[in-house]
Amino acid sequence: MNYRTNNCGELNISHCGKSVKLCGWVSKIRDKGHLKWIDLRDIHGTTQLVFDRDRTKKNVLNIAKKIGREFVIQISGKVVERISHNKNISTGDIEIIVNEITILNESKNPPFTIEENTDGGDELRLKYRYLDIRRKPIQKNLLFRSEVASMVRKYLISNGFTEIETPFLIKSTPEGARDFIVPSRMNQGKFYALPQSPQTFKQLLMISGMEKYFQIVKCFRDEDLRSDRQPEFTQIDCEMSFVNQKDVMECFEGLLSDLLLEIHGIEKKSFPVISYFDAMNKYGSDKPDIRFGMEIHNIKEYTKNKGFKIFNDSEVVVAITVPKASIWSRKEIDYWIEWVKKPQVGSKGLVWVKNNLDGSVKSSVDKFYDYKNLKKWINECECKKGDLIFVMSGKKNETLIQMGKLRMEIAEKLNLRKAFEFAPLWVVDFPLFFKDDMNNYHPMHHPFTSPKSEHLDLLDEKPNEVHALAYDLVMNGNEIGGGSIRIINTKIQEKIFSVIGLNKKKSKEQFGFLVDALEFGAPPHGGIALGFDRLVAILNGDESIRDYIAFPKNNSGYDVMIKAPSEVDPQQLDDLGILKK
Amino acid sequence: MNYRTNNCGELNISHCGKSVKLCGWVSKIRDKGHLKWIDLRDIHGTTQLVFDRDRTKKNVLNIAKKIGREFVIQISGKVVERISHNKNISTGDIEIIVNEITILNESKNPPFTIEENTDGGDELRLKYRYLDIRRKPIQKNLLFRSEVASMVRKYLISNGFTEIETPFLIKSTPEGARDFIVPSRMNQGKFYALPQSPQTFKQLLMISGMEKYFQIVKCFRDEDLRSDRQPEFTQIDCEMSFVNQKDVMECFEGLLSDLLLEIHGIEKKSFPVISYFDAMNKYGSDKPDIRFGMEIHNIKEYTKNKGFKIFNDSEVVVAITVPKASIWSRKEIDYWIEWVKKPQVGSKGLVWVKNNLDGSVKSSVDKFYDYKNLKKWINECECKKGDLIFVMSGKKNETLIQMGKLRMEIAEKLNLRKAFEFAPLWVVDFPLFFKDDMNNYHPMHHPFTSPKSEHLDLLDEKPNEVHALAYDLVMNGNEIGGGSIRIINTKIQEKIFSVIGLNKKKSKEQFGFLVDALEFGAPPHGGIALGFDRLVAILNGDESIRDYIAFPKNNSGYDVMIKAPSEVDPQQLDDLGILKK
Repeated sequence: MNYRTNNCGELNISHCGKSVKLCGWVSKIRDKGHLKWIDLRDIHGTTQLVFDRDRTKKNVLNIAKKIGREFVIQISGKVVERISHNKNISTGDIEIIVNEITILNESKNPPFTIEENTDGGDELRLKYRYLDIRRKPIQKNLLFRSEVASMVRKYLISNGFTEIETPFLIKSTPEGARDFIVPSRMNQGKFYALPQSPQTFKQLLMISGMEKYFQIVKCFRDEDLRSDRQPEFTQIDCEMSFVNQKDVMECFEGLLSDLLLEIHGIEKKSFPVISYFDAMNKYGSDKPDIRFGMEIHNIKEYTKNKGFKIFNDSEVVVAITVPKASIWSRKEIDYWIEWVKKPQVGSKGLVWVKNNLDGSVKSSVDKFYDYKNLKKWINECECKKGDLIFVMSGKKNETLIQMGKLRMEIAEKLNLRKAFEFAPLWVVDFPLFFKDDMNNYHPMHHPFTSPKSEHLDLLDEKPNEVHALAYDLVMNGNEIGGGSIRIINTKIQEKIFSVIGLNKKKSKEQFGFLVDALEFGAPPHGGIALGFDRLVAILNGDESIRDYIAFPKNNSGYDVMIKAPSEVDPQQLDDLGILKK
Repeated sequence: MNYRTNNCGELNISHCGKSVKLCGWVSKIRDKGHLKWIDLRDIHGTTQLVFDRDRTKKNVLNIAKKIGREFVIQISGKVVERISHNKNISTGDIEIIVNEITILNESKNPPFTIEENTDGGDELRLKYRYLDIRRKPIQKNLLFRSEVASMVRKYLISNGFTEIETPFLIKSTPEGARDFIVPSRMNQGKFYALPQSPQTFKQLLMISGMEKYFQIVKCFRDEDLRSDRQPEFTQIDCEMSFVNQKDVMECFEGLLSDLLLEIHGIEKKSFPVISYFDAMNKYGSDKPDIRFGMEIHNIKEYTKNKGFKIFNDSEVVVAITVPKASIWSRKEIDYWIEWVKKPQVGSKGLVWVKNNLDGSVKSSVDKFYDYKNLKKWINECECKKGDLIFVMSGKKNETLIQMGKLRMEIAEKLNLRKAFEFAPLWVVDFPLFFKDDMNNYHPMHHPFTSPKSEHLDLLDEKPNEVHALAYDLVMNGNEIGGGSIRIINTKIQEKIFSVIGLNKKKSKEQFGFLVDALEFGAPPHGGIALGFDRLVAILNGDESIRDYIAFPKNNSGYDVMIKAPSEVDPQQLDDLGILKK
């Protein structure tokens, strides 16, 4: 016997008169004495059940009396037209006169309401995640995620990619973020590591001749979690052989275009391509949100020699124009001056200039700069009447980043970052290395990224001037993905290891298999990895990833539902040959 | 500039006269002085390149001289018709007269030949797995695996399933096989575990109302590895709500039918369904290979009271008929008598009966059983003239299993197990528990398996008589998958825990979240998990899974290519708060 003939989302006026059997959860009960309605819910929708003293059998009414919210029931009945139609739901024209009812399972009263907007707090929702997922918005997110995964696979497979699984129990490499490690019982005293990405394996697959690889795969990073980071996350991981940078970019521009078209009907082609340095100079970010203007202008040359020491002593003086903000009150401006001083931003303050609608100009540095001076700023910053300019100064890189943060936060507040507007772009021409505080070089991406061939000569003397064949796919202020053309020459690979301070012994230990493999005919290859959790969130007009993950961990990496991590049996540790300190 | 205009597998007679650019690996070089041929290989195929003194430029010939096996090259040239066509390959009608050549990368001489049949041993091939994969058979296996994954997804998605990722960093549970555990840095002294399967999470997803879930997902078991087991393996994991056993079986019978039809054009419908007890009695296995007969017969009643003590004292006397084996020599028969005594089989010996073609009957127990007696055995065993009967005796269960092993091994030797013949079936009606040597009960599958409702009353007094709503999908002597209808009632779940010796405190600690969840309206649900590695191998006519996994580990769980597991930095252990013993 089948549990049901129909689901709770598909019955409509055309089914009137039909006998049906439905299953689902009781989401609402309204009781008017002689009449009782129950909203029966499943993942497909909600159908209204009706019981009345005239038409419903006594024993059915008696069972109906015992039913509470979130009970799982099975009913049989007849589809009839409702007296007052509900245009908000697909089944709103009909209801079911119930003539049989079975309680399939009871439910305690849930700790928060299972509705569009719940009254449950974050931790409570995580603890009872299985109830949180019963809520339509979360169910929809998970369905959406599954659909996007399906579209991604369809695109890649139709473009000749092969999905290949790479191992999870691999080798720990101290480079980059921290690994999760897994003690080995069969090889005591030794450890596997969980992959931060399948990077080396996908390169080996290219050396294997597999040509076009992809995988939608879990990756792991044992980092101190910032909010909205997860210790395990999902990547769309890809690699291609016999390609240059342009080929990879075209292929994945095609993927994102397809997704935007299929999901939102939005056509995006020929994504803008800007260099890392332009991105930093214009947006103070290597993942700029270009949906709104407010670009950064360097006005240093218009600020010189007017006796304003702070600007005179600064490496840069940079400004953004805030549209229609000349009417901001002192209090509003002060809010932003305080905001940029927050430790997360770290600026010393802001200078402001109002280009008033009446033609007058007012600024916080009137003492040093007269109307004529400020007019030059206004021209440079394309500041229209009614707009306001914010100015920052300091060391180049950090000031640009601070200004970039201010730009984003103001845009957020002014609602310029529209969820369902999409502005993808490529950022290219990254430096190959960055220097840490101790003056040590580190790979900007990872040590397998190829330098530009025209910069090879700089590797010995001026590594900081070497650019990489690397590219980031950016959308709406988020890095959607990043990739590069890889090194295929053993000598260049070894030089890179030496620049980042991995001596021969160490690099051999950690990446020996890859360096060895390069000697057996590695084809030109490159690839990209996209953060799937974030991609899905952004495509759905969200930025937070947590509600797109079925069972996320909290900000301490703790799963409050299953209570993991947890103590383990001492015998288990003993078998593994490890002790707790 | 694109690297190539075509791949190495697509050019044919219709392309003659065309200028093309190809990339690939040099797989063969033949040099006749004035003529030189190179076979250029990529994943799509092989194309013959030709160089001759008259038609090829001097500088191209000079570069061609430097080229060795497995070099990566790029060539430009013209497609011409070959003088002698090679009908074995798709490009066999043409060759390319090369007019430009670039060495993209050199190669050392590979440690084994990159050919259909290599001269490399198992460990060497694992160490240089990236070269092993360059071999056509392995490339084809990985492509096949990707295609099967794609077909599985297509089927499940078109049947309304949602692909949902479940977490990898979960909680250790001592029940069942041994977990791999992962020390937590942020919660020192505590450990995550890697999932042996997403069992509890998929049940929670049903309680969440997600209704039809699937995932193709890695699972982990820290077991002592038998050959052809891997510590990480891939499962097609599924769960459905508002279904009974029949619904789940129908759905996954449909999946396997679809795969067999799409891959091999074989129509298989209405798979046989046999009970666990019938499977054991007829085949001595709960995963019988039914492609050949040789069923087991119980001939106990025909052996009684003839003075043969061994049979008289045995719980069972079971026999199989080996077709056309009456002509076997004493030596051949002795081989099998020794074979069943191997510790992996564990039998004490075999009795044999020859039903000779000339009508005579000969046996190793002629002393006790006369022609008339033996004729009864022959009738019971459906033994035709020219066949041979093997007989075993002993305790019921172990003797059946021993006979089952003999049956399979003889079939293997007689080549009755045809790789591309497929015989799927369902095995049902499993006992819910098995008893270990200490008389403790353990779940036959896992503790969430529902007992048959008509056996609920037996749970207290006779747990060993309780049958489960469990079903295994079996094909060609392999368990392809197994599943069950789950318990949705807290009280029954707690009773099961108590039968298997998990007291309230322990079960709460380990599965509290699931038992809690059952109280909030768990729908009727059930599911199945299929071993993907093995499914792919079997569908491709193989039984060994290793060549269907890109980067497998050896039998000690060791990855000989990347050398993992390995020592880790003492600082890492320190950060995790653990010590090596």
